[in-house]
Amino acid sequence: MKVLILAAGLGKRMKSKYPKVVHKILGKPMINWVVDLGKKFGEVGVVVGHKAEIVKSYLPQDVKTYLQEPQLGTGHAVMCAKEFIVSEDDIVILYGDVPLLKPETIEKLAQTHARAKADVTVLTFIADDPTGYGRIIRNGEKIRIVEHKDANEEQLKIKEVNSGIYVFSGKFLLENLDKLSNNNAQGEYYLTDLVEMASKVETVLLDDPVQVSGVNDRVQLAQLESVAKERILKELMLSGVTVVDPASTFVGPDVKIGIDTIIHPFTILEGNITIGEDCEIGPYTRIKDSTIGNNVKIMRSEVEGAIIENNVSVGPFARLREGTVLKEKVKIGNFVETKKSVIGKNSKAQHLTYLGDATIGEDVNIGAGTITCNYDGYKKYPTSIGDGAFIGSNSSLVAPVKIGKGAIVGAGSVITEDVPDDALALGRARQVIKENWAKMKREAMENANHKE
Amino acid sequence: MKVLILAAGLGKRMKSKYPKVVHKILGKPMINWVVDLGKKFGEVGVVVGHKAEIVKSYLPQDVKTYLQEPQLGTGHAVMCAKEFIVSEDDIVILYGDVPLLKPETIEKLAQTHARAKADVTVLTFIADDPTGYGRIIRNGEKIRIVEHKDANEEQLKIKEVNSGIYVFSGKFLLENLDKLSNNNAQGEYYLTDLVEMASKVETVLLDDPVQVSGVNDRVQLAQLESVAKERILKELMLSGVTVVDPASTFVGPDVKIGIDTIIHPFTILEGNITIGEDCEIGPYTRIKDSTIGNNVKIMRSEVEGAIIENNVSVGPFARLREGTVLKEKVKIGNFVETKKSVIGKNSKAQHLTYLGDATIGEDVNIGAGTITCNYDGYKKYPTSIGDGAFIGSNSSLVAPVKIGKGAIVGAGSVITEDVPDDALALGRARQVIKENWAKMKREAMENANHKE
Amino acid sequence: MKVLILAAGLGKRMKSKYPKVVHKILGKPMINWVVDLGKKFGEVGVVVGHKAEIVKSYLPQDVKTYLQEPQLGTGHAVMCAKEFIVSEDDIVILYGDVPLLKPETIEKLAQTHARAKADVTVLTFIADDPTGYGRIIRNGEKIRIVEHKDANEEQLKIKEVNSGIYVFSGKFLLENLDKLSNNNAQGEYYLTDLVEMASKVETVLLDDPVQVSGVNDRVQLAQLESVAKERILKELMLSGVTVVDPASTFVGPDVKIGIDTIIHPFTILEGNITIGEDCEIGPYTRIKDSTIGNNVKIMRSEVEGAIIENNVSVGPFARLREGTVLKEKVKIGNFVETKKSVIGKNSKAQHLTYLGDATIGEDVNIGAGTITCNYDGYKKYPTSIGDGAFIGSNSSLVAPVKIGKGAIVGAGSVITEDVPDDALALGRARQVIKENWAKMKREAMENANHKE
Repeated sequence: MKVLILAAGLGKRMKSKYPKVVHKILGKPMINWVVDLGKKFGEVGVVVGHKAEIVKSYLPQDVKTYLQEPQLGTGHAVMCAKEFIVSEDDIVILYGDVPLLKPETIEKLAQTHARAKADVTVLTFIADDPTGYGRIIRNGEKIRIVEHKDANEEQLKIKEVNSGIYVFSGKFLLENLDKLSNNNAQGEYYLTDLVEMASKVETVLLDDPVQVSGVNDRVQLAQLESVAKERILKELMLSGVTVVDPASTFVGPDVKIGIDTIIHPFTILEGNITIGEDCEIGPYTRIKDSTIGNNVKIMRSEVEGAIIENNVSVGPFARLREGTVLKEKVKIGNFVETKKSVIGKNSKAQHLTYLGDATIGEDVNIGAGTITCNYDGYKKYPTSIGDGAFIGSNSSLVAPVKIGKGAIVGAGSVITEDVPDDALALGRARQVIKENWAKMKREAMENANHKE
Repeated sequence: MKVLILAAGLGKRMKSKYPKVVHKILGKPMINWVVDLGKKFGEVGVVVGHKAEIVKSYLPQDVKTYLQEPQLGTGHAVMCAKEFIVSEDDIVILYGDVPLLKPETIEKLAQTHARAKADVTVLTFIADDPTGYGRIIRNGEKIRIVEHKDANEEQLKIKEVNSGIYVFSGKFLLENLDKLSNNNAQGEYYLTDLVEMASKVETVLLDDPVQVSGVNDRVQLAQLESVAKERILKELMLSGVTVVDPASTFVGPDVKIGIDTIIHPFTILEGNITIGEDCEIGPYTRIKDSTIGNNVKIMRSEVEGAIIENNVSVGPFARLREGTVLKEKVKIGNFVETKKSVIGKNSKAQHLTYLGDATIGEDVNIGAGTITCNYDGYKKYPTSIGDGAFIGSNSSLVAPVKIGKGAIVGAGSVITEDVPDDALALGRARQVIKENWAKMKREAMENANHKE
Repeated sequence: MKVLILAAGLGKRMKSKYPKVVHKILGKPMINWVVDLGKKFGEVGVVVGHKAEIVKSYLPQDVKTYLQEPQLGTGHAVMCAKEFIVSEDDIVILYGDVPLLKPETIEKLAQTHARAKADVTVLTFIADDPTGYGRIIRNGEKIRIVEHKDANEEQLKIKEVNSGIYVFSGKFLLENLDKLSNNNAQGEYYLTDLVEMASKVETVLLDDPVQVSGVNDRVQLAQLESVAKERILKELMLSGVTVVDPASTFVGPDVKIGIDTIIHPFTILEGNITIGEDCEIGPYTRIKDSTIGNNVKIMRSEVEGAIIENNVSVGPFARLREGTVLKEKVKIGNFVETKKSVIGKNSKAQHLTYLGDATIGEDVNIGAGTITCNYDGYKKYPTSIGDGAFIGSNSSLVAPVKIGKGAIVGAGSVITEDVPDDALALGRARQVIKENWAKMKREAMENANHKE
């Protein structure tokens, strides 16, 4: 089977500088929802047109694209992709702005098509208000589609309508595509005309029409976001994940979550994420493209491109950036940022810390206010901290620098040279007391104020 | 035209120490919604009564107020504002606790009134349950309002009711206001009695009754917040702004947003805000009274009273306070606070920094943990940093102080004196190593524990 | 009266490693909702079975538990708790997975039972779809329950059904419990059979069936969370608390809030909390188990186990941990963490600060970046700061240490020894300038880049 996705349209009502199909649902562009769906069934081709280069930039490399320029209707779109069609394969027609079709629907469509050896199988649904849709006309075995504008009074009453999604026999398509004509008011070529030409038409009735809802404006985009979200969350809940408040939880389609994990309110999970069992995620947590073990807590934090092992605690108010690896039992606390850093088992950085380009051993304690000074205005440099080291508060570790195993860095130190294993490093001035200085200043200020 | 707003009521069911009309919807007091609406049509007067001083403190200076004390009904309220009425002008009657009326409704009311040369034009609506409302009785051309309690069985079935919003001819009002009587059970003066006195009454039927919903308790306050929010967001979406999740997005009535800007979930935009095109605002962002250019990202941050130019990135976990100006391409990162500071083009403060009363040039790099020490316990002082300067991490800049162009401040320095252009400034102790000190301490602690 | 709660079930559809009744609603385990409800009426017993030890770990000490092992139906559950029943007391039967029953419903049930001197009083409700429920059959005065599977066509049409919640006379129960038989298809003992045995059965019809909704899977758990939340928020709003957006506000059942307090969106209040009048809580605030005075602002912060007096301001981006006490007029600003610390009246810690194990006097100013170094890798030590002291920015206070009254600590100091009252303490190096060093470095780097 092959899957051809029509994505050449303008999407004028989106009022956007960008093509409609790259607008996102749950953080994933609509076109990628449809491409990923199509890939479950075979090779995928995409017909691009309006702002084709932008659309192509969102497609995976193994997807073939066909340019439709100008855009003269759905039939014309398929004609532009004629070389994608082969006689032996059935071909599914999908749309870049209809993102929420389920794989089981295509499955059923394809099976019905194969079983009936049909020329074309049409996905239909019952529309409460069928105005504007092509009606499904059944005359004994013979099935036709009559466009709304061509329908007679009797036909207008029919509520079963054409979704626009089809499986065609490749052979039928190749033999008939050139017979399409644009001899109509709009001067366009319509796929529905092919249904008219077919000897054997089958239909599959969809009982859940929201699957074929398209996006025409941003109100509809928000509505489908909401539908997508509810669908994913319901599935997660029934599989053993607690979603405390589905209304304020956003989980993308490429997220896997283990049982007994709790997703607290105000949480956004986007991109490719795996989360283990017994975790607590949120509230107020946003995670993107990360791998998270079991029994991990991530409260009110931003996580992107991180790998987090079992029994780790993160946040609140933490930010784990690209390239962060937290080994087992690590604790990352509030106002802590990590970037391109590996933090060893059982190590802690609990307060007001920046760790960038750092490799940190096991059982290390990073004091509050510690900063890896990894940038000198020209280049980035690495910091390395050995197992069991203790970094005092408000320390500045000027990279490149290496703190030995079991070493201690005194609070407030600026460390510019490597510290041997087991040593104490200090880089700070001795404390000086000026007795009564504060009192004299206070009195001076009070006198000054008095004069003002 | 003139607009008179009745806002003298007590609002007992609010259970509040504050007058009802100062309670807020989308961050804006109800009375200000109505005043701003009224100002589109002419001079605005407000009848105050209950906690008058508090209500007056919320009103703009150009609004006249009239005291109604005691409060003896809507007719009495207008009588108290008699000097606001002039014979030549029509006068619209609005209510301080009916905040969501649309300007186009008043427009239509005023046009109908003028076209018909009516004495009074009444805004009516169809109530599903008309209980308690005055019914609109039409007898040929003659229109009357019959109060619920005075209505006969036939009249009680009428579902078209009086919203309480009117346009009166000023002349009619001046001639008849004094004829109102409080000869009724409640001892109050009612505006509806004026409709009875009018020779020519017109009506405008509102097809969207939520516009005239009033607020009587805090449940209704929350409901109108929700209606206001949906209305504003829908308009934004149709104009080309992406609102990922309308349910968790709050945008006030005085916010302008350019096309292709994306508002992520959990975002609150309050007060006077202008946002350009192609921005990403949120998630978890709250902005108040700010001006924001194009292609700006503001993630999980608090922004108030800031001016942000094009191509700036802010957050996550940043706080921009009053008087912050970020020039083009500035980057403000996590755990950074700015206050009364101007940050020049292309400068960066990415981690754990406080910038207060600072003027920062272009291409400046502010290291992690930098603090402008702008307060000595008595006064605030300014800090100035020249173009191209590099401030090392964990530096303390003790204001007043000036860092020259192209200067470098070493990590962990306390800078108390001005730094010349192109100089290196250090204010830190040399690093000292005590070999094996940490090991000895560890052994001592272990021995101690052993004894315990 | 006594209350027996059945909580032995497995909850297979929860797909959980934990027993169903410990899953939470608004941060409180379901079983604890029911136990707290029961305690309003008398002694509480709980029948445990599946994962009994886990369930017992959630119960207060004064609750008696009875093991049902294996689990052979509701009648069997009561049989297992036979020793809890006494002849003189009525006994209410509740369920650990039916958390939202209201006290007034039990009140009414108990009163009806007592007034009628019934053997058993059944709580019933009208089910839109009664499939699966036991039908309430009334034959003159005589009331019976017929199980769905045993009902004839006429009975199946009855929509009044058994909620499973009863008040039994203790005497009746003791006399008849042993007569229950498991001579049925499932081999279980059913409480409904006792109704059949009773001479005098009464019913109370519940007009709000959501009260008896049970939780069988996590979709239903989320639904009841939503019901619980709406109920609590509505009550708060009607009592004089503003809830800006009920949809994104979570307030647990053990939270008290004073009038004119405003709860902003994205706020979670869990556990035992008291909040005074005129506060602003949120947006983005989460509070657990804390006591908060009047006129307190807590914006975008995490608060747990804290005591906060009047006129305090917290956040945004603050974290108050266990054992924090903020006296009147304290200001805690952004990126500030407190833990086991008492902060005196009118003191301020506004930026980038960690205060742990600290006792801070009145009128103290804690500069940005101040850190109490309370941990040396082995133990925690206290810090004490006297009234009127001024701690300069980026200071490290190495505990145990005491800063005297009115003392000043210079910016960037590491304080390792006590500072006397009114003294100035400095612990930092003198500033050194290296003229043109930065320029030379810049040129060297540029040359290096040139060669690369």
